[in-house]
Amino acid sequence: MTIKLYCFGESGNAYKAALALQLSGLDWEAVKVDFFGGETRTPEFRASINEMGEAPVLVDGDIKLTQSGVIQDYVSEKSGKFGGADASERREVMRWVLWDNHKLSSGAGMTRFLMNFLPEDKRPAEVIAFHQGRLKAAYTVLNDHLEGRDWIVGGGITNADLSCCGYLYYPEPFGFDRAEWPHIDAWLTRLSQVPGWKAPYDLMPGSPADRT
Amino acid sequence: MTIKLYCFGESGNAYKAALALQLSGLDWEAVKVDFFGGETRTPEFRASINEMGEAPVLVDGDIKLTQSGVIQDYVSEKSGKFGGADASERREVMRWVLWDNHKLSSGAGMTRFLMNFLPEDKRPAEVIAFHQGRLKAAYTVLNDHLEGRDWIVGGGITNADLSCCGYLYYPEPFGFDRAEWPHIDAWLTRLSQVPGWKAPYDLMPGSPADRT
Repeated sequence: MTIKLYCFGESGNAYKAALALQLSGLDWEAVKVDFFGGETRTPEFRASINEMGEAPVLVDGDIKLTQSGVIQDYVSEKSGKFGGADASERREVMRWVLWDNHKLSSGAGMTRFLMNFLPEDKRPAEVIAFHQGRLKAAYTVLNDHLEGRDWIVGGGITNADLSCCGYLYYPEPFGFDRAEWPHIDAWLTRLSQVPGWKAPYDLMPGSPADRT
Repeated sequence: MTIKLYCFGESGNAYKAALALQLSGLDWEAVKVDFFGGETRTPEFRASINEMGEAPVLVDGDIKLTQSGVIQDYVSEKSGKFGGADASERREVMRWVLWDNHKLSSGAGMTRFLMNFLPEDKRPAEVIAFHQGRLKAAYTVLNDHLEGRDWIVGGGITNADLSCCGYLYYPEPFGFDRAEWPHIDAWLTRLSQVPGWKAPYDLMPGSPADRT
Protein backbone atom coordinates (compact mmCIF):
# COMPACT_ATOMS: atom_id res chain seq x y z
CA MET A 1 0.00 0.00 0.00
CA THR A 2 1.26 3.46 -0.87
CA ILE A 3 2.03 5.67 2.15
CA LYS A 4 0.28 9.04 1.95
CA LEU A 5 1.89 12.20 3.28
CA TYR A 6 -0.41 15.19 3.79
CA CYS A 7 1.87 18.15 3.20
CA PHE A 8 2.42 21.41 1.36
CA GLY A 9 5.46 22.79 -0.39
CA GLU A 10 6.05 25.79 1.87
CA SER A 11 6.39 23.71 5.03
CA GLY A 12 9.91 22.82 6.10
CA ASN A 13 8.46 20.50 8.72
CA ALA A 14 6.60 18.63 5.99
CA TYR A 15 9.79 18.62 3.92
CA LYS A 16 11.64 16.76 6.69
CA ALA A 17 9.09 13.95 6.48
CA ALA A 18 8.88 14.01 2.68
CA LEU A 19 12.65 13.90 2.27
CA ALA A 20 12.95 10.95 4.66
CA LEU A 21 10.30 9.08 2.68
CA GLN A 22 11.90 10.06 -0.63
CA LEU A 23 15.41 8.91 0.28
CA SER A 24 14.21 5.77 2.12
CA GLY A 25 12.99 4.05 -1.03
CA LEU A 26 9.54 3.41 0.49
CA ASP A 27 6.50 3.76 -1.77
CA TRP A 28 4.83 7.09 -0.96
CA GLU A 29 2.83 9.93 -2.43
CA ALA A 30 2.23 13.52 -1.41
CA VAL A 31 -1.31 14.80 -0.81
CA LYS A 32 -1.64 18.56 -0.81
CA VAL A 33 -3.01 20.26 2.30
CA ASP A 34 -4.30 23.79 1.74
CA PHE A 35 -2.53 25.40 4.70
CA PHE A 36 -2.77 28.93 3.34
CA GLY A 37 -6.49 28.45 2.79
CA GLY A 38 -6.73 27.51 6.48
CA GLU A 39 -7.39 23.78 6.02
CA THR A 40 -5.17 22.58 8.89
CA ARG A 41 -6.91 24.88 11.36
CA THR A 42 -10.51 23.91 10.60
CA PRO A 43 -12.51 21.96 13.21
CA GLU A 44 -12.84 19.13 10.67
CA PHE A 45 -9.07 18.82 10.20
CA ARG A 46 -8.48 18.94 13.95
CA ALA A 47 -11.17 16.34 14.62
CA SER A 48 -10.33 13.87 11.87
CA ILE A 49 -6.69 14.41 10.95
CA ASN A 50 -4.64 16.24 13.60
CA GLU A 51 -5.81 17.92 16.80
CA MET A 52 -2.57 19.93 16.78
CA GLY A 53 -3.79 21.65 13.61
CA GLU A 54 -0.53 21.02 11.79
CA ALA A 55 0.92 19.24 8.77
CA PRO A 56 2.63 16.92 7.93
CA VAL A 57 0.44 13.91 8.60
CA LEU A 58 1.42 10.42 7.44
CA VAL A 59 -1.21 7.78 6.73
CA ASP A 60 -0.12 4.18 6.20
CA GLY A 61 -3.16 1.89 6.28
CA ASP A 62 -4.58 2.19 9.80
CA ILE A 63 -1.59 4.10 11.10
CA LYS A 64 -1.82 7.88 11.23
CA LEU A 65 1.15 9.87 12.49
CA THR A 66 1.92 13.52 12.99
CA GLN A 67 5.05 15.51 13.96
CA SER A 68 7.87 15.22 11.45
CA GLY A 69 10.18 13.60 14.04
CA VAL A 70 7.67 10.81 14.68
CA ILE A 71 7.18 10.27 10.94
CA GLN A 72 10.95 10.11 10.42
CA ASP A 73 11.20 7.56 13.24
CA TYR A 74 8.49 5.47 11.57
CA VAL A 75 10.26 5.66 8.21
CA SER A 76 13.44 4.45 9.94
CA GLU A 77 11.61 1.57 11.58
CA LYS A 78 10.05 0.54 8.28
CA SER A 79 13.06 1.05 6.01
CA GLY A 80 15.93 0.35 8.40
CA LYS A 81 17.50 3.67 7.35
CA PHE A 82 18.46 6.98 9.01
CA GLY A 83 17.95 5.88 12.62
CA GLY A 84 21.63 5.59 13.62
CA ALA A 85 23.85 2.51 13.78
CA ASP A 86 23.52 1.65 17.50
CA ALA A 87 21.93 2.81 20.76
CA SER A 88 24.43 5.60 21.21
CA GLU A 89 23.90 6.94 17.68
CA ARG A 90 20.15 6.54 18.06
CA ARG A 91 20.23 8.82 21.12
CA GLU A 92 22.48 11.29 19.33
CA VAL A 93 20.03 11.41 16.42
CA MET A 94 17.18 12.07 18.83
CA ARG A 95 19.24 14.79 20.49
CA TRP A 96 19.72 16.70 17.26
CA VAL A 97 16.10 16.21 16.18
CA LEU A 98 14.94 17.69 19.50
CA TRP A 99 17.45 20.51 19.29
CA ASP A 100 16.27 21.26 15.76
CA ASN A 101 12.64 21.38 16.94
CA HIS A 102 13.55 23.61 19.84
CA LYS A 103 16.19 25.93 18.44
CA LEU A 104 16.59 25.73 14.67
CA SER A 105 13.53 24.81 12.58
CA SER A 106 11.05 26.39 14.99
CA GLY A 107 12.77 29.77 14.74
CA ALA A 108 13.66 29.50 11.05
CA GLY A 109 10.15 28.43 10.07
CA MET A 110 8.54 31.21 12.04
CA THR A 111 10.93 33.93 10.86
CA ARG A 112 10.56 32.87 7.24
CA PHE A 113 6.78 32.92 7.62
CA LEU A 114 6.78 36.39 9.18
CA MET A 115 9.15 37.79 6.55
CA ASN A 116 7.56 36.25 3.47
CA PHE A 117 4.00 35.05 3.99
CA LEU A 118 2.51 37.94 5.95
CA PRO A 119 1.41 41.18 4.24
CA GLU A 120 4.27 43.70 4.35
CA ASP A 121 2.48 46.01 6.78
CA LYS A 122 1.89 43.16 9.25
CA ARG A 123 5.47 41.97 9.63
CA PRO A 124 6.60 42.45 13.25
CA ALA A 125 10.08 43.93 12.92
CA GLU A 126 11.12 43.48 16.54
CA VAL A 127 10.06 39.82 16.60
CA ILE A 128 11.91 39.13 13.35
CA ALA A 129 15.11 40.79 14.57
CA PHE A 130 14.94 38.99 17.91
CA HIS A 131 14.63 35.56 16.28
CA GLN A 132 17.30 36.28 13.70
CA GLY A 133 19.64 36.87 16.66
CA ARG A 134 18.66 33.60 18.30
CA LEU A 135 19.02 31.75 15.01
CA LYS A 136 22.59 32.98 14.61
CA ALA A 137 23.42 31.14 17.83
CA ALA A 138 21.80 27.99 16.41
CA TYR A 139 23.64 28.27 13.07
CA THR A 140 26.89 28.64 15.02
CA VAL A 141 26.24 25.43 16.98
CA LEU A 142 25.47 23.48 13.80
CA ASN A 143 28.29 24.98 11.76
CA ASP A 144 30.84 24.24 14.50
CA HIS A 145 29.55 20.69 14.85
CA LEU A 146 29.85 20.03 11.13
CA GLU A 147 33.48 21.13 10.94
CA GLY A 148 35.36 17.98 9.96
CA ARG A 149 32.18 15.90 9.70
CA ASP A 150 30.26 14.77 6.63
CA TRP A 151 27.03 14.13 8.53
CA ILE A 152 25.63 15.26 11.86
CA VAL A 153 25.74 11.82 13.50
CA GLY A 154 28.06 8.94 12.61
CA GLY A 155 29.16 7.99 9.10
CA GLY A 156 25.99 8.45 7.08
CA ILE A 157 22.72 10.32 6.65
CA THR A 158 20.39 10.13 9.63
CA ASN A 159 17.20 11.82 10.69
CA ALA A 160 19.40 14.41 12.38
CA ASP A 161 20.43 15.63 8.92
CA LEU A 162 16.92 15.27 7.49
CA SER A 163 15.54 17.32 10.39
CA CYS A 164 18.08 20.13 10.63
CA CYS A 165 18.03 20.81 6.88
CA GLY A 166 14.25 21.33 6.91
CA TYR A 167 14.19 25.09 6.28
CA LEU A 168 17.68 25.63 4.95
CA TYR A 169 17.05 24.88 1.25
CA TYR A 170 14.18 27.34 0.82
CA PRO A 171 14.71 30.30 -1.50
CA GLU A 172 12.76 32.86 0.58
CA PRO A 173 14.97 35.15 2.70
CA PHE A 174 14.84 34.81 6.48
CA GLY A 175 18.33 35.87 7.47
CA PHE A 176 20.19 32.64 6.67
CA ASP A 177 22.96 33.05 4.13
CA ARG A 178 24.74 29.78 3.32
CA ALA A 179 27.93 31.62 2.38
CA GLU A 180 28.35 32.78 5.99
CA TRP A 181 28.34 29.21 7.33
CA PRO A 182 30.84 27.16 5.30
CA HIS A 183 30.39 23.83 7.07
CA ILE A 184 26.60 24.05 6.87
CA ASP A 185 26.94 25.05 3.22
CA ALA A 186 29.15 22.05 2.38
CA TRP A 187 26.83 19.68 4.24
CA LEU A 188 23.72 21.01 2.42
CA THR A 189 25.53 20.54 -0.89
CA ARG A 190 26.56 17.00 0.11
CA LEU A 191 23.00 16.08 1.06
CA SER A 192 21.59 17.58 -2.14
CA GLN A 193 23.87 15.29 -4.16
CA VAL A 194 22.36 12.11 -2.73
CA PRO A 195 20.43 10.25 -5.46
CA GLY A 196 16.73 11.01 -5.24
CA TRP A 197 17.14 14.31 -3.35
CA LYS A 198 14.78 17.07 -4.43
CA ALA A 199 14.33 20.65 -3.28
CA PRO A 200 11.16 21.38 -1.24
CA TYR A 201 9.06 22.86 -4.04
CA ASP A 202 10.00 19.99 -6.35
CA LEU A 203 9.25 17.29 -3.77
CA MET A 204 5.89 18.52 -2.46
CA PRO A 205 2.80 20.10 -4.06
CA GLY A 206 2.11 23.80 -3.61
CA SER A 207 4.42 26.81 -3.70
CA PRO A 208 4.18 30.59 -3.40
CA ALA A 209 3.97 30.70 -7.20
CA ASP A 210 0.47 29.16 -6.95
CA ARG A 211 -0.80 32.17 -5.03
CA THR A 212 0.51 34.96 -7.22
CA MET B 1 26.50 4.35 40.61
CA THR B 2 24.52 7.52 41.24
CA ILE B 3 23.33 9.28 38.10
CA LYS B 4 24.32 12.95 38.03
CA LEU B 5 22.08 15.60 36.49
CA TYR B 6 23.70 18.96 35.75
CA CYS B 7 20.85 21.40 36.15
CA PHE B 8 19.60 24.62 37.74
CA GLY B 9 16.31 25.43 39.40
CA GLU B 10 15.13 28.06 36.95
CA SER B 11 15.26 25.72 33.93
CA GLY B 12 12.01 24.03 32.98
CA ASN B 13 13.94 21.90 30.52
CA ALA B 14 16.14 20.66 33.37
CA TYR B 15 13.00 20.13 35.45
CA LYS B 16 11.62 17.72 32.83
CA ALA B 17 14.70 15.54 33.23
CA ALA B 18 14.88 15.92 37.02
CA LEU B 19 11.20 15.04 37.47
CA ALA B 20 11.55 11.93 35.30
CA LEU B 21 14.53 10.82 37.41
CA GLN B 22 12.73 11.67 40.65
CA LEU B 23 9.55 9.74 39.82
CA SER B 24 11.41 6.80 38.23
CA GLY B 25 12.94 5.62 41.48
CA LEU B 26 16.46 5.61 39.97
CA ASP B 27 19.34 6.75 42.17
CA TRP B 28 20.27 10.31 41.10
CA GLU B 29 21.60 13.60 42.36
CA ALA B 30 21.43 17.16 41.09
CA VAL B 31 24.63 19.12 40.36
CA LYS B 32 24.16 22.86 40.07
CA VAL B 33 25.15 24.56 36.83
CA ASP B 34 25.64 28.32 37.12
CA PHE B 35 23.60 29.31 34.06
CA PHE B 36 23.08 32.90 35.16
CA GLY B 37 26.82 33.26 35.71
CA GLY B 38 27.29 32.12 32.10
CA GLU B 39 28.71 28.65 32.84
CA THR B 40 26.81 26.80 30.08
CA ARG B 41 28.04 29.23 27.43
CA THR B 42 31.75 29.11 28.23
CA PRO B 43 34.13 27.44 25.76
CA GLU B 44 35.05 24.93 28.51
CA PHE B 45 31.43 23.87 29.05
CA ARG B 46 30.86 23.59 25.29
CA ALA B 47 34.04 21.58 24.79
CA SER B 48 33.74 19.18 27.71
CA ILE B 49 30.04 19.01 28.63
CA ASN B 50 27.68 20.16 25.87
CA GLU B 51 28.48 21.81 22.54
CA MET B 52 24.89 23.09 22.43
CA GLY B 53 25.70 25.26 25.44
CA GLU B 54 22.65 24.07 27.34
CA ALA B 55 21.59 22.25 30.49
CA PRO B 56 20.39 19.70 31.52
CA VAL B 57 23.19 17.19 31.06
CA LEU B 58 22.96 13.65 32.48
CA VAL B 59 26.08 11.69 33.34
CA ASP B 60 25.78 7.99 34.16
CA GLY B 61 29.23 6.41 34.22
CA ASP B 62 30.57 6.73 30.66
CA ILE B 63 27.25 7.86 29.26
CA LYS B 64 26.69 11.60 28.86
CA LEU B 65 23.37 12.80 27.48
CA THR B 66 21.84 16.18 26.71
CA GLN B 67 18.39 17.38 25.65
CA SER B 68 15.65 16.67 28.17
CA GLY B 69 13.77 14.42 25.74
CA VAL B 70 16.82 12.19 25.29
CA ILE B 71 17.38 12.05 29.04
CA GLN B 72 13.74 11.12 29.60
CA ASP B 73 14.05 8.38 26.99
CA TYR B 74 17.13 7.03 28.78
CA VAL B 75 15.32 7.08 32.14
CA SER B 76 12.50 5.11 30.51
CA GLU B 77 14.91 2.57 29.08
CA LYS B 78 16.63 2.15 32.43
CA SER B 79 13.57 2.16 34.69
CA GLY B 80 10.91 0.71 32.39
CA LYS B 81 8.67 3.68 33.18
CA PHE B 82 7.04 6.58 31.30
CA GLY B 83 7.82 5.35 27.77
CA GLY B 84 4.28 4.21 26.83
CA ALA B 85 2.77 0.72 26.90
CA ASP B 86 3.29 -0.32 23.25
CA ALA B 87 4.64 0.92 19.91
CA SER B 88 1.61 3.08 19.27
CA GLU B 89 1.80 4.74 22.69
CA ARG B 90 5.55 5.14 22.32
CA ARG B 91 5.01 7.12 19.10
CA GLU B 92 2.26 9.16 20.72
CA VAL B 93 4.62 10.01 23.60
CA MET B 94 7.30 11.10 21.12
CA ARG B 95 4.71 13.19 19.27
CA TRP B 96 3.82 15.18 22.36
CA VAL B 97 7.45 15.55 23.45
CA LEU B 98 8.29 17.00 20.02
CA TRP B 99 5.23 19.23 20.03
CA ASP B 100 6.20 20.45 23.49
CA ASN B 101 9.73 21.26 22.29
CA HIS B 102 8.40 23.04 19.24
CA LYS B 103 5.30 24.84 20.47
CA LEU B 104 4.94 24.83 24.26
CA SER B 105 8.10 24.73 26.38
CA SER B 106 10.20 26.62 23.84
CA GLY B 107 7.81 29.57 23.85
CA ALA B 108 6.97 29.38 27.55
CA GLY B 109 10.61 29.17 28.61
CA MET B 110 11.62 32.07 26.42
CA THR B 111 8.68 34.29 27.40
CA ARG B 112 9.25 33.59 31.09
CA PHE B 113 12.93 34.43 30.67
CA LEU B 114 12.21 37.70 28.87
CA MET B 115 9.58 38.76 31.41
CA ASN B 116 11.43 37.81 34.58
CA PHE B 117 15.16 37.37 34.12
CA LEU B 118 16.03 40.35 31.94
CA PRO B 119 16.38 43.85 33.40
CA GLU B 120 13.07 45.69 33.13
CA ASP B 121 14.33 48.15 30.53
CA LYS B 122 15.55 45.32 28.26
CA ARG B 123 12.29 43.38 28.00
CA PRO B 124 11.11 43.35 24.36
CA ALA B 125 7.39 44.07 24.63
CA GLU B 126 6.51 43.14 21.05
CA VAL B 127 8.33 39.80 21.25
CA ILE B 128 6.63 38.97 24.55
CA ALA B 129 3.16 39.82 23.24
CA PHE B 130 3.75 37.85 20.04
CA HIS B 131 4.76 34.71 21.92
CA GLN B 132 1.97 35.02 24.45
CA GLY B 133 -0.42 34.89 21.49
CA ARG B 134 1.25 31.78 20.08
CA LEU B 135 1.28 30.15 23.51
CA LYS B 136 -2.48 30.62 23.85
CA ALA B 137 -2.88 28.42 20.78
CA ALA B 138 -0.64 25.80 22.41
CA TYR B 139 -2.51 25.91 25.74
CA THR B 140 -5.74 25.44 23.79
CA VAL B 141 -4.42 22.31 22.06
CA LEU B 142 -3.27 20.81 25.37
CA ASN B 143 -6.36 21.81 27.32
CA ASP B 144 -8.69 20.36 24.66
CA HIS B 145 -6.65 17.16 24.55
CA LEU B 146 -6.83 16.71 28.34
CA GLU B 147 -10.61 17.03 28.46
CA GLY B 148 -11.81 13.63 29.68
CA ARG B 149 -8.25 12.31 30.07
CA ASP B 150 -6.16 11.84 33.20
CA TRP B 151 -2.85 11.76 31.33
CA ILE B 152 -1.70 12.91 27.90
CA VAL B 153 -1.06 9.41 26.51
CA GLY B 154 -2.72 6.17 27.65
CA GLY B 155 -3.62 5.29 31.22
CA GLY B 156 -0.63 6.54 33.18
CA ILE B 157 2.16 9.08 33.43
CA THR B 158 4.50 9.18 30.46
CA ASN B 159 7.28 11.43 29.25
CA ALA B 160 4.57 13.38 27.39
CA ASP B 161 3.27 14.59 30.77
CA LEU B 162 6.77 15.08 32.18
CA SER B 163 7.72 17.18 29.14
CA CYS B 164 4.63 19.35 28.70
CA CYS B 165 4.51 20.30 32.40
CA GLY B 166 8.09 21.61 32.29
CA TYR B 167 7.37 25.32 32.64
CA LEU B 168 3.81 25.21 33.97
CA TYR B 169 4.57 24.88 37.70
CA TYR B 170 6.84 27.93 37.93
CA PRO B 171 5.68 30.87 40.03
CA GLU B 172 7.05 33.63 37.75
CA PRO B 173 4.41 35.22 35.49
CA PHE B 174 4.64 34.65 31.74
CA GLY B 175 1.01 34.87 30.70
CA PHE B 176 -0.11 31.38 31.75
CA ASP B 177 -2.93 31.38 34.30
CA ARG B 178 -3.99 27.89 35.37
CA ALA B 179 -7.48 29.07 36.20
CA GLU B 180 -8.11 29.84 32.51
CA TRP B 181 -7.34 26.26 31.45
CA PRO B 182 -9.38 23.88 33.63
CA HIS B 183 -8.21 20.60 32.10
CA ILE B 184 -4.55 21.63 32.25
CA ASP B 185 -5.11 22.80 35.82
CA ALA B 186 -6.65 19.47 36.90
CA TRP B 187 -3.85 17.53 35.20
CA LEU B 188 -1.13 19.62 36.88
CA THR B 189 -2.82 19.01 40.24
CA ARG B 190 -3.07 15.27 39.51
CA LEU B 191 0.61 15.07 38.59
CA SER B 192 1.66 17.06 41.67
CA GLN B 193 -0.10 14.50 43.87
CA VAL B 194 2.07 11.62 42.66
CA PRO B 195 4.33 10.39 45.51
CA GLY B 196 7.79 11.91 45.20
CA TRP B 197 6.70 14.90 43.08
CA LYS B 198 8.40 18.18 43.93
CA ALA B 199 8.08 21.67 42.51
CA PRO B 200 11.04 22.91 40.40
CA TYR B 201 12.76 25.00 43.06
CA ASP B 202 12.44 22.16 45.59
CA LEU B 203 13.77 19.52 43.22
CA MET B 204 16.80 21.34 41.77
CA PRO B 205 19.46 23.64 43.23
CA GLY B 206 19.37 27.37 42.51
CA SER B 207 16.47 29.81 42.41
CA PRO B 208 15.89 33.53 41.81
CA ALA B 209 16.06 33.98 45.60
CA ASP B 210 19.81 33.18 45.43
CA ARG B 211 20.42 36.25 43.30
CA THR B 212 18.53 38.84 45.28
